[in-house]
Amino acid sequence: MAKEPKVSLIPLGGLGEIGKNMMAVRFGENILVIDCGLMFPEEEMLGIDVVIPDITFLLENREQVRGIVLTHGHEDHIGALPYILRQINVPVYGTRLTLGLLLGKLKERGMEREVELHTVKPREMVHIGPFKVEFIRVSHSIPDAVSVAIHTPVGAIIHTGDFKLDLTPVDGQVTDFYRFAQLGEKGVLVLMSDSTNVERPGITMSEKVVGQTFDETFRNARERIIVATFASNVHRLQQAISTAYRYDRKVAVVGRSMLNVVSVANELGYLNIPEGTMVELDEAARLPKNRLVYLTTGSQGEPMSALTRMAMSDHRQVEIVPGDTIIISATPIPGNEKLVARIIDQLFKHGAHVIYEAVSGIHVSGHPSQEELKLMITLTKPRFFVPVHGEHRMLVKHAQLAKEMGIPPNHVFVGENGHVLEFNRRTGRFAGRVTAGRVLVDGLGVGDVGNIVLRDRKQLSQDGILIVVVTINREAGMIVAGPDIVSRGFVYVRESEILLEEAREKVRAALEKCTERGISEWAAIKSQIRDSLGKFLYEKTRRRPMILPIIMEI
Amino acid sequence: MAKEPKVSLIPLGGLGEIGKNMMAVRFGENILVIDCGLMFPEEEMLGIDVVIPDITFLLENREQVRGIVLTHGHEDHIGALPYILRQINVPVYGTRLTLGLLLGKLKERGMEREVELHTVKPREMVHIGPFKVEFIRVSHSIPDAVSVAIHTPVGAIIHTGDFKLDLTPVDGQVTDFYRFAQLGEKGVLVLMSDSTNVERPGITMSEKVVGQTFDETFRNARERIIVATFASNVHRLQQAISTAYRYDRKVAVVGRSMLNVVSVANELGYLNIPEGTMVELDEAARLPKNRLVYLTTGSQGEPMSALTRMAMSDHRQVEIVPGDTIIISATPIPGNEKLVARIIDQLFKHGAHVIYEAVSGIHVSGHPSQEELKLMITLTKPRFFVPVHGEHRMLVKHAQLAKEMGIPPNHVFVGENGHVLEFNRRTGRFAGRVTAGRVLVDGLGVGDVGNIVLRDRKQLSQDGILIVVVTINREAGMIVAGPDIVSRGFVYVRESEILLEEAREKVRAALEKCTERGISEWAAIKSQIRDSLGKFLYEKTRRRPMILPIIMEI
Repeated sequence: MAKEPKVSLIPLGGLGEIGKNMMAVRFGENILVIDCGLMFPEEEMLGIDVVIPDITFLLENREQVRGIVLTHGHEDHIGALPYILRQINVPVYGTRLTLGLLLGKLKERGMEREVELHTVKPREMVHIGPFKVEFIRVSHSIPDAVSVAIHTPVGAIIHTGDFKLDLTPVDGQVTDFYRFAQLGEKGVLVLMSDSTNVERPGITMSEKVVGQTFDETFRNARERIIVATFASNVHRLQQAISTAYRYDRKVAVVGRSMLNVVSVANELGYLNIPEGTMVELDEAARLPKNRLVYLTTGSQGEPMSALTRMAMSDHRQVEIVPGDTIIISATPIPGNEKLVARIIDQLFKHGAHVIYEAVSGIHVSGHPSQEELKLMITLTKPRFFVPVHGEHRMLVKHAQLAKEMGIPPNHVFVGENGHVLEFNRRTGRFAGRVTAGRVLVDGLGVGDVGNIVLRDRKQLSQDGILIVVVTINREAGMIVAGPDIVSRGFVYVRESEILLEEAREKVRAALEKCTERGISEWAAIKSQIRDSLGKFLYEKTRRRPMILPIIMEI
Repeated sequence: MAKEPKVSLIPLGGLGEIGKNMMAVRFGENILVIDCGLMFPEEEMLGIDVVIPDITFLLENREQVRGIVLTHGHEDHIGALPYILRQINVPVYGTRLTLGLLLGKLKERGMEREVELHTVKPREMVHIGPFKVEFIRVSHSIPDAVSVAIHTPVGAIIHTGDFKLDLTPVDGQVTDFYRFAQLGEKGVLVLMSDSTNVERPGITMSEKVVGQTFDETFRNARERIIVATFASNVHRLQQAISTAYRYDRKVAVVGRSMLNVVSVANELGYLNIPEGTMVELDEAARLPKNRLVYLTTGSQGEPMSALTRMAMSDHRQVEIVPGDTIIISATPIPGNEKLVARIIDQLFKHGAHVIYEAVSGIHVSGHPSQEELKLMITLTKPRFFVPVHGEHRMLVKHAQLAKEMGIPPNHVFVGENGHVLEFNRRTGRFAGRVTAGRVLVDGLGVGDVGNIVLRDRKQLSQDGILIVVVTINREAGMIVAGPDIVSRGFVYVRESEILLEEAREKVRAALEKCTERGISEWAAIKSQIRDSLGKFLYEKTRRRPMILPIIMEI
């Protein structure tokens, strides 16, 4: 009897977390990867710029990796590619805008010629190794987003990517309900679906709702309007531009990342900009205030963003003045709440009129709420269900939803990164683990900052450092210079001279003790200094600075 | 003509921020202080424990300070007292529970005998210097909360403290609407009112709503129940205890701060605990799972709290197991969203059933929403209005509300800490500034951590430190030991030996250059090392560690 064919799903990112989405599909000796995103660092990852998936598994099976397919152009889906493609260069498949945005990233790093990019269209079917891969249009907060259906000998696997079921999308490109339903009718083996908004009942509002809010706000604004939103939300930019045109205002774009997106989206035809609407910043400054809209980044209160610099009176070209209407068309991503609140406060202090979160219709999500998730399950009627894109509790809730929809509990799998899922036509099961996790990027270093470095940064950030230096003539067995004590981030030195002098005394005493006892191992001496000084400082200050003894020998 | 009498309000905390509430009222040479709270550190205040108000103004006018009146026992109203009373020891006035909680803090520091405490009751009038001070009952998320009315020769000043207008409070102690209305009828000069929830329309739900949710949850829970909430929310604790009793469950308290509050509140009669309801943890462990409720701290995901330790399988006495029902009866305070989400995720991983934010009725606020704020203005009919307790935008919105209620715009003042407001019977105006601001507490140090130390901690936390040590024989003009390089929090040393060896070379070269050019100033040599090494490391790593050259001389 022939062995029953099997297909595996190997989650490399995005399960148990929001961000760095990456899923590998394996059939025989062929691996296809869906998305390759980054994630922004957690609070305790001090000094880290971005976090990318650990791709050890792909590197170990390098010759099997047939390609990477992309669902859309957001950072959490394409942002790790420039790092990953350096380690494993395979063909990349995506829609036009997605690849346009990726190309920008590759160009910045001079990698644009090294990578094989294949542009695909919704409903197009491409052959990648043994996989027939099909792209299915969905709505999302960026144009040209798709789900992927991967046809394998075991069955069809659908990965929704990020989606919402917007029935009145700004670009008129409605989700391809027919194709999802058709696949469902024929039989879908596995559905992997976006869990980001599973905690929200009902359906997510249409992007067009924001257009109505823009219209009302623009109609009432007497002077300048500043719209801050996500650089990549091309639909939102389109609505701001269209509304500006309707109210006879010119539009100036502020902020590098938004300039990039506008340029790529416009070039590729994803923005419809009426002739003469856009102006440069210097021209904008000369226009009457009621004839102008700024589009800017900084809706998350990012410290270096254009809006933050404006709010802090630190932007060279745009200054906030009383009479300005500022629309923050976004909700804070978890962790950014205080940054955003601080910016709003600053804008209020400049006397601006600020429209933000509290106002309904100023932002809508790009992810599906519960009723949309149910509809996706209803349309595709999958045999097996795997929630993706979400923190653990979201995956659990999405799994509960699927069970309530009638999928048998043993056909629903709450996975985690690195935990392999294996399916044949009738059954699915967890089948072992592969390496998966987080690789930290800090400056040019990819993965060179690990737990020890982070632990040190943590200690340094809390109580600073105290360095003790002493030069010893080993032969003579005597101190020839020092002990000197230098501290940073511990106490304000000028006001703590007595404390530091006492600390120096402690070190001298510890050194003498070592000499008396005939201790000559540097390690033992250092440990003696650390202990005695640490105890002394904790008693005096209730702080635990890092203590770093350095012994120089002549 | 006699000079017209004037009264001043001097905000020392709580304006333009949430926390460290403190307001001084001055008449002639008499100062009365309302509340003395602390604030938790902002994200960028690395290593700081708490933040307290700068009381330079009070110290400079030490002999005029007649006393401190407290509105209720929350940390942001009484938490700075143990620090402040060390600097300026004046009588403190508050209700029984408020002083009971304060006393606990003073005892911890051995200060209980040094401080003069006066217990007051709602509707009681006390004379403090020239002020007649009256306490008026309000509802809040802690019992025994009061507003204060200060009768001065210029007029009556009302400070609401924190309040809500709960019509069905758990303890039956309804806000004293009559007294507010009576004062309004007689004439109120200034109303200072709580702005925390001014962004919320409608009215804040009654605390009793949470009791209904508890009832439903307790009724349905099959095994253990764990309720996490704010330690100080005695009403909430009461409702959990009453519900436990109704469903024949025993209650065990976990977490030091909650044990403190339960003990004080019970002793003073603010908790009604049926005989035999409370059990110790070891007894609890022996009870059947369906006969037990744990009350615990940690609703904010605080890293050292009981709930966090349970979630991380790090609590000695309580372990989370499948079947547990965990009620997180709180909403995350801004800044804590991610911590809380992480704990919830961990609890899900243990297979617990978690009821949190997403469920309505699991928490209600202790602060008034817009309609309650309007009612307070309507009742008291103040001549002047000063919003307090809020970030700047909240104060602005509260001021707008007051203007919409008919208070003339020039009678409404959006203040800031240190900005003095002066009133006579007919007019009010800003009248100069006094010192006000933040004092950072780190361990035993109060105010010894300033901008330089924080800037250093910031740099250390981002990219670590690189220490360069060299011992020089000055007379001989030669290096006798080193240069040695030690780094912490920069790169993982074992994997960066080549980089550090190259760095050592750079230092040698810099030192040689100095020798050649005859530079013998240590400062100049150090700066040469810093520049050349900094540039080299940035090129190689795109990081900017702190570089600390230490030159030892023999």
